[in-house]
Order: sequence, then C-alpha cells, then structure tokens
Amino acid sequence: VSFSATTAMAKSKFEYVRYFERDDTCLRNCYIVVRLDGRNFHRFAEQHNFVKPNDERALGLMMRSAHSVMEELEDIAIAYGQSDEYSFIFKRSSNWFKRRASKLMTHVASQFSSAYVFYWKDYFGEQQKLLYPPSFDGRVVLYPSNRNLRDYLSWRQADCHVNNLYNTVFWNLVQKGGLTTSEAEEKLKGTVAADKNEILFSEFNINYNNEPPIYKKGTVLIWDKVNETTTKHIKLPHEEHEKEVTVTRTRNIITAHHCDIIGNEFWEEHPNILEDDGC
Amino acid sequence: VSFSATTAMAKSKFEYVRYFERDDTCLRNCYIVVRLDGRNFHRFAEQHNFVKPNDERALGLMMRSAHSVMEELEDIAIAYGQSDEYSFIFKRSSNWFKRRASKLMTHVASQFSSAYVFYWKDYFGEQQKLLYPPSFDGRVVLYPSNRNLRDYLSWRQADCHVNNLYNTVFWNLVQKGGLTTSEAEEKLKGTVAADKNEILFSEFNINYNNEPPIYKKGTVLIWDKVNETTTKHIKLPHEEHEKEVTVTRTRNIITAHHCDIIGNEFWEEHPNILEDDGC
Amino acid sequence: VSFSATTAMAKSKFEYVRYFERDDTCLRNCYIVVRLDGRNFHRFAEQHNFVKPNDERALGLMMRSAHSVMEELEDIAIAYGQSDEYSFIFKRSSNWFKRRASKLMTHVASQFSSAYVFYWKDYFGEQQKLLYPPSFDGRVVLYPSNRNLRDYLSWRQADCHVNNLYNTVFWNLVQKGGLTTSEAEEKLKGTVAADKNEILFSEFNINYNNEPPIYKKGTVLIWDKVNETTTKHIKLPHEEHEKEVTVTRTRNIITAHHCDIIGNEFWEEHPNILEDDGC
Amino acid sequence: VSFSATTAMAKSKFEYVRYFERDDTCLRNCYIVVRLDGRNFHRFAEQHNFVKPNDERALGLMMRSAHSVMEELEDIAIAYGQSDEYSFIFKRSSNWFKRRASKLMTHVASQFSSAYVFYWKDYFGEQQKLLYPPSFDGRVVLYPSNRNLRDYLSWRQADCHVNNLYNTVFWNLVQKGGLTTSEAEEKLKGTVAADKNEILFSEFNINYNNEPPIYKKGTVLIWDKVNETTTKHIKLPHEEHEKEVTVTRTRNIITAHHCDIIGNEFWEEHPNILEDDGC
Repeated sequence: VSFSATTAMAKSKFEYVRYFERDDTCLRNCYIVVRLDGRNFHRFAEQHNFVKPNDERALGLMMRSAHSVMEELEDIAIAYGQSDEYSFIFKRSSNWFKRRASKLMTHVASQFSSAYVFYWKDYFGEQQKLLYPPSFDGRVVLYPSNRNLRDYLSWRQADCHVNNLYNTVFWNLVQKGGLTTSEAEEKLKGTVAADKNEILFSEFNINYNNEPPIYKKGTVLIWDKVNETTTKHIKLPHEEHEKEVTVTRTRNIITAHHCDIIGNEFWEEHPNILEDDGC
Repeated sequence: VSFSATTAMAKSKFEYVRYFERDDTCLRNCYIVVRLDGRNFHRFAEQHNFVKPNDERALGLMMRSAHSVMEELEDIAIAYGQSDEYSFIFKRSSNWFKRRASKLMTHVASQFSSAYVFYWKDYFGEQQKLLYPPSFDGRVVLYPSNRNLRDYLSWRQADCHVNNLYNTVFWNLVQKGGLTTSEAEEKLKGTVAADKNEILFSEFNINYNNEPPIYKKGTVLIWDKVNETTTKHIKLPHEEHEKEVTVTRTRNIITAHHCDIIGNEFWEEHPNILEDDGC
Repeated sequence: VSFSATTAMAKSKFEYVRYFERDDTCLRNCYIVVRLDGRNFHRFAEQHNFVKPNDERALGLMMRSAHSVMEELEDIAIAYGQSDEYSFIFKRSSNWFKRRASKLMTHVASQFSSAYVFYWKDYFGEQQKLLYPPSFDGRVVLYPSNRNLRDYLSWRQADCHVNNLYNTVFWNLVQKGGLTTSEAEEKLKGTVAADKNEILFSEFNINYNNEPPIYKKGTVLIWDKVNETTTKHIKLPHEEHEKEVTVTRTRNIITAHHCDIIGNEFWEEHPNILEDDGC
Repeated sequence: VSFSATTAMAKSKFEYVRYFERDDTCLRNCYIVVRLDGRNFHRFAEQHNFVKPNDERALGLMMRSAHSVMEELEDIAIAYGQSDEYSFIFKRSSNWFKRRASKLMTHVASQFSSAYVFYWKDYFGEQQKLLYPPSFDGRVVLYPSNRNLRDYLSWRQADCHVNNLYNTVFWNLVQKGGLTTSEAEEKLKGTVAADKNEILFSEFNINYNNEPPIYKKGTVLIWDKVNETTTKHIKLPHEEHEKEVTVTRTRNIITAHHCDIIGNEFWEEHPNILEDDGC
C-alpha cells in the first residue's frame, strides 16, 4: 500500500522530464512534405521475387498504402510515388497535429507501413508470402512557395523517368539480351537518354514512349469531387405510397493519375491542389 | 527522345529543392528516446475485443513488435513498454543514422507498426481478425545525463502503476461489482492508492501486490549475454576417429523483464545499459 | 617544450567538441526578420532624461545605428523602427552568412549596439553623458510570403500608432493637464482611439493628425538609387586642352521614410523591395 | 479619427504573424556556451595600430567587456577569452531568458559590443581614437557533460597556445629578425612547437615559458567569494557613546585568471564552477 502511494507521488517528481521535449512546429504557410523511402528494398525485392524492372503488384501495394495514409490523415493535398518511395504533401494552411513535424512524419510512416503489411495479400496473393516486416524511413521538408513545391514534385518525377529508362534498358539487356548484369552496366556507362531509347528500339523493338505511364510517370494521388446519384424510396406523411427520389451528392474521393506533373497542364486542370502564394 | 533528354536535364534544374531539408541531428552525448503511442487505441481495443483491464495477447504483440525494432535498429540499449506505448532508448554514444532525429523516429515507427500487423495472427489467432491497419505516432526526446534518463523511465513506470491500479479497480467494479462505468468512475473520484487497494481487497478479495508483474510494472527489454553450448563432432587430420567437442559461445539476445526500474537494484544488476556520465 | 608539443596534440584531441554545434540555417526562399528590442529601456530613458513621449535625439540615434547595420551587413532590403525596437529584413534570396540564424542575429545585435554607443555623442551632445553601456536583445522570424512579411511590418506600424496615440495623450495629461501618472492612467482606461483624439483636441488643442510623422509612423529605411552628377576635367591624348565632362553615376543610398507602410501605395512606389512570391 | 480606430483593429488582424516565431529553447541540463568572434578584426587591429603579436590594451578592453557581460547577465559561471574571441558559459541549471538561444546570444553580443565601445577610451586613451563601430558575431553550443565542457575550454586554450607561440616567433622574425612577412611564413612552414621554441631562444634569447601568462593562457573570468570587512560606528539606544563595530560580509566578485584550465588543478581549486553530472 505504502509503495503505491510512493509511486503516485514519485510520478509527479519525475514529470520534469517532459520539459526536455523540443518544440518542432513546422513554419506556417509552407507546404509540409513527408517523404518515405523503403529500407533495404533492394534486398526485400529480391527476397520477394519482384518482377524487374517494374513489379505491378508492388506498385499497386505502394499505392494502396499511400491511399490508406491519405484517408487516415487530414490535410494531405497530393501524394506522389515511384519505385519504393512516396511523398505526401500537407496543405500549407494545415494545422493537423498543430504542424508538429515529429508527429506528422511518424504517423505517416506508421500508417503506411502498417497498411503495407495489412494489404500485402491483396496484391501478392497466397503464393508470395511476406517473409518479414518491411520498414520505411521518412523525413520532413518545408516549401514556402508553389514554385518550390512544384519543383520538388518535378524533381521526383524526373528522377522516376531517369531511373525507369535506365532500368528498362538494363533489364532488357539482361533478360532478353543475355548479358550479365555487369556487362549491361558496362554497356550503359556514359549513354544519354537518346542512346538508351535507340538500344530499346533497335535491339528489342520497344518504343519507350509506349511503355505504361505508371512506370514512366509514377503515381499521383489527389482528392477529386464526384457526384454520386442514389435512388431512395421515400414515403411522405400525407401520401399513401412510397415515392422514388433521385438524390445527387458530391463526395470527395482519392483518384490516381499517371500523368506528367512537370508541365502546367495538370495543375491547370486541378486548380484546387495548390493554395495561392498570396496568402 | 527529346523529351527524355529534357527531363534528365530538368532533374538537375529541380535539384535545388534538396537544400530546403533541415539538419535535425540530435545533440551528441545525450540519450535519444523515441516514444511511440497508439493512435485511437481506445477505439481499436474495443473493436478488437481486448480483455479489460489488461489483454495479454495485446501486451504480447506490443512486446513482439518492440523486439523486432531492437533487432533491426542498431544501438538501442533498452526499451520500455506499457499499455499502448513503447519507448526506445538509443545509446548516448550512438551514431546510428548519423543521429538524425527524423530518420530515427520514422524508422522506429515504421518497423514497429509493420511488425504489429505482421505478428498479429501469432497473438490473436484466427478468431480475432485485424480489421484495419492500426497506427502509432512518435516523438524524440534527448536526455543529457543518466539521472535524467532514469527519471524518464521512472516516470513511465510510475504512470504504468497508477493507471493499472485505477483500471484494475475500475473494471472489477464494473465486471464483478455490477456497477455501470459512470458509477465506477464516480466511486473512484478522489480516492488515493490506499483506498483503491482496500476496495480490491475487501470487495473482490484481490491483493494488488499479487497481480501479474507485467501489468504492474510493464515490460523492459534489454540485451543480455548468454552462453550457448553446442556439441560439435570434429575429426582432426592426424586422428582416425571423430571427437565430440563442446563449444561455448557468448551471444547477445534480447530479454524481457517485468521488474521495478525506479530503484537502484535493476541498474546495479545490469551495469552495461547506461554509459558513464563522465564521457 | 614538451608542454607545447602536448598542447598542440591535445588541441586535436579536444576538437570533437565542434560537432556539438547545431546547424541553424534559415529555410530558403523566406524573408528573414531580425528584430532588436532595447533591454530595460524604460529605466535607461529615465536615467538619460529622454523627453516624453518622444525624444528626437533618441529616435535619431536609433536610426543612425540601424543605418550602420544596413551599411555593414549585406542583403537587408528594408528596416523598420519605432520606440526602442528595430526590425531588419533580409531578402528572401539572401545567402549572407549562409543564412545561419545565429550569425545573422548576433551580428545585427552587435553592430547596432556598438553603433549606438559610438554615435551617442552626435545625438546627445556633451551635456547628456552615456552612463553605462546599453544593450538590446534580438530574435529571428521567417516569413514565407510577401503577404506575411507585409503583415509583419503592418503589425509593427500599427503597434507604433497605438502606443504613440496613448503616450501622446498620457503625457499631455501629465505635463500640461497636471494629472499624476496614475490619474492619467485611470482616465485613459477603456478609452478608444476616438476618445483619445477628442481629449487631445478639446483639452490641449492638439490635432493628432498634425503630429510629426516620425512619431506616428516610425521610420522606414530602404535602399534608393540616386543619380550623382559630378564634373570631371579630362584631357584626351590628342587634344591640347582639358575638357569639362559631366558624369552621371547611379549609386545606392539608404533613405529614411516616415510614411504609411500598411497600405499599398508605399509598396507600389518601391516595387524592388519585395521579391516575387513566384520564385 | 476613423483611421486610428481602423489601425487599432488592424493591429489585431496582423498579430497572427507572431506565430511564425520558432521556439529555440536550449535542451535542459546542458551547459550553454555563447562564443563571440570579432568581425574583420585583422583589419580592425591594423587600423587601430594594435601592437603585434599581443596588444595589452586590446586584451584589457576585451576583458573589461566580458566583465560587463558577466555583471549584466545572470548565470554565467565562467568566461574564457583569447585574441578577439570570448566564450561565456551559462550554468547547466540556468533558466535565464527561459533558455531561449536567440535571446541569450544576442544579449551577450549586444552587451559585449556596447561595452567595447563604451570602455574604449579607458584602454586606448585619447591618442588612439576608435574610428568606427566594431562588431562581433556569436553562436550557441550545448554541452551535456562536465567532460564535454572542459574539453571545449581546453580546445580554446590549446588554440590560444598554438596561435600565440606561432605569432610570437613570427613577429620576432619580422620585427627583430628583419624578415618580410612572407619570409617569416616560409621559415615557419612545417615547424613543430619545439622548433619554434628553439628559434625564439637561439635567435632572440627568449624563453617562451617566461612570456606573460595572459598571452600564453588567455583569460579566465569566474565568480569568487571575498570577505569584505568594514568598520561601522553604531550608537545603541541605551548607550551614551558610539561604538566601533567590525562587520564582515561575503560578496561575489568577478576575478581574472591566466592559468592552465586543461589540467585538473584549476577545477579542483574552484569546485563550484561546474555542477555535478549526476543531476
């Protein structure tokens, strides 16, 4: 009994340790970007027999996990993913978690990882078992202007393109061309994009432009408004029979796009993603 | 073709956005504590029929997930968990992830969450399906001295005790005493530890001191050295027959403890957890 | 001798302490505001017989010190001062001191304080000696957009106005109206701006609008281009006599303004102070 | 009138800009070091005819300015200066300015600079006028343990020694040896401490060990308790004549030392400067 009393008092004696926590509030009126990267996904991909250079199941699972993050966390305006990375952009006006950087990034990392394991079977089926819990690390970066944010997203999409072109040629050389991985590496050393396109076309009859957009452009997730029309049966008090009524509701849903986000077109078509710099 | 070339060049044009990332290196020679807390675990516990006041399956799964974090990340000297929270303490001399706070906490949050889903079935079996991916949020706190770190851990263990005593009485009043939850709440208002012990004893014949240590003290995970003795059969070149040889190897393994960590005894028994303040 | 050798070696042994310094680089593409506030200037003003409610010598010395800061530090686009405070705004594109917050604010605080003592005699003459070295403290705040920065400056100017109106009435009540300071305080309790204007007009025949702009608006320092015309005497090689030549050079000088900076007019007249949000 | 009302209201409209300020509280239980460095003091020394390699007036003025900082700011346990730099160490338990890094470093920088100009004449007299306001920049570094703090101070004192030995030989070669500065530089390239001592002794008959401690060791400022004995004349009510009474009071004063602080002796003699790591 006396022990309990002591402990209760002790608790307040120890409580001073709270004040060692640092305030890490993100600067207001800036976009908050949380980017996740797979940890040791090279090895993970091998162990789980990912198809090279792109595994549709893996890309689908990444998209599903990102979808789960957007559904659970408020104020994510847009997400962009490619390969084993995903970026989540919180509105510049967001006050979610009081803009505390640590809370934002750990919650994103946790939700994404948890969803990745949860939905694994939906994408990889029963044959390809998940062998161990995978993990992602994250970071937070702030961008003060729309130009800076768009340049960030452009940077990631350009990275997607550059890597995918390389990987597409590399794995064709290995899988169809019969080269070893080091021979393929050697052959691609110093080549520019035009050279790589040429190899694809002349050696493998592949026109890179016809490759699936999800490989070339990655995945953009945004909120879209959709009209949902439902039919309801209503009986009004003063009427004898039910009436069929058509009800149209606007609902926000997450939609996926595999289009260019470097140019202006995408942003002009979706003017509500960015908030005005004039704020 | 020209598109690709442009994109490759564009990539370097966008690369300046890298420099918006902030350096968040943790001050050296301080313990780095990463604490995770379950998000909406009150609701999660209800939906997954957790036993009140303590669900052994849930506590076991938390421990398994923490174990996974300690195995995967370097330099965690000790972890402490209770209820839906877990604290991981990195050595003050650790240089893991170059001490970058964001990387440390997101990696911990990700690994823990991923493991939680991965090992769910091992603890909850087939009957209690996991309904959706749960999540945890995290934070980083630095402690400059051994005293500060021990006070942090004491604070969490005192919190465990205070909550568990309350919950034990509360749920006995509800489950066995037939009170509604608001009646139980009302009855406990203003009571001190001694009162609660008395209710447990006189009304339910429960001696709180005999409750399972894991409920009263939470769980401490540390690295322990164990001697593993294996028997090998060796045939030496100049001998005719195999010989049986006993080999003893020291191996580091993670062990769980449900003991008091507020007093000195635990720390005297495990002198290698803390590094000297004189560093 | 051996001591010296030891010390030289020791130096490198101690050098690890460098790595405890934190990187405090200011987020790019944001305006960096350094604001200084006088320490205990209430007492300082009394001890140095500042005229109430506004001392022209003191305001002049503040302006001279701010001028010295702008001359010595690069990239200050605009400064605003009132009472015993001054704000210095570094260009959002500035890379001065690699945008290190600590360097920026300490350099501003040091230069300002040093200049304040250095130029004291130019403003207070020989009669009013400086009794001890005064000091200022400072802080850094970042603003991501032009709107935010203008709102910051508007906030400081509105503060100047509100305080000056109050002080003008207060000191008229005391100095001319014969009230004690507590009577004056009492009388002004709960009054709005209109009431204060009315007291000034009906009791002291003062139209607040005619008060000097430097009191009502504070001081704005900006860089202005001026054309300087000088006459030079030049003798060309193939000519016999010197020729008088008029040379016009554009030079950047710091100019002081005591005008409204809340409305748009000032900013339209000086379009080069702010950099475009679209950057 | 209406303008005033509008401005008053406007002020509150703009006030949101306050929330862009970042919390920069220093981690508790760590020593807070603020170090100042002279800006362009090489040039400043030349323009003000500082004696090479050490100018006693300049060192005296630095010490006087540091003294002023210690008198004005609370909780500085020790200061160390050499050449044109000074380090101020706040107690690890200090709560001055709520441990806000920006306030601490700007206040130190401001007080020091202001004092430097204020006391200039006391050290340089009327002959050597101060030509312009000099400035210093500063930084904040935290040290979690006594060992780290002592190593920081040792680092600065070792730096003092290494520089002073070099400068002493260098300026003897130039001033007495008749070498140009580049010849002296060339001659010293690659030499170790023993070589420099040898040059001093054989060429200039100087035993470096006999150089003034202030040059070799820099200046340490600490608080010391002194007993002040004063004689008071007291007339007690029931007595006829005054009595002479000796009153002894303990007072804290700042004392300067030019001794070794790398070894243990200094710290053993002044056990109250450091606070125990066990806190």
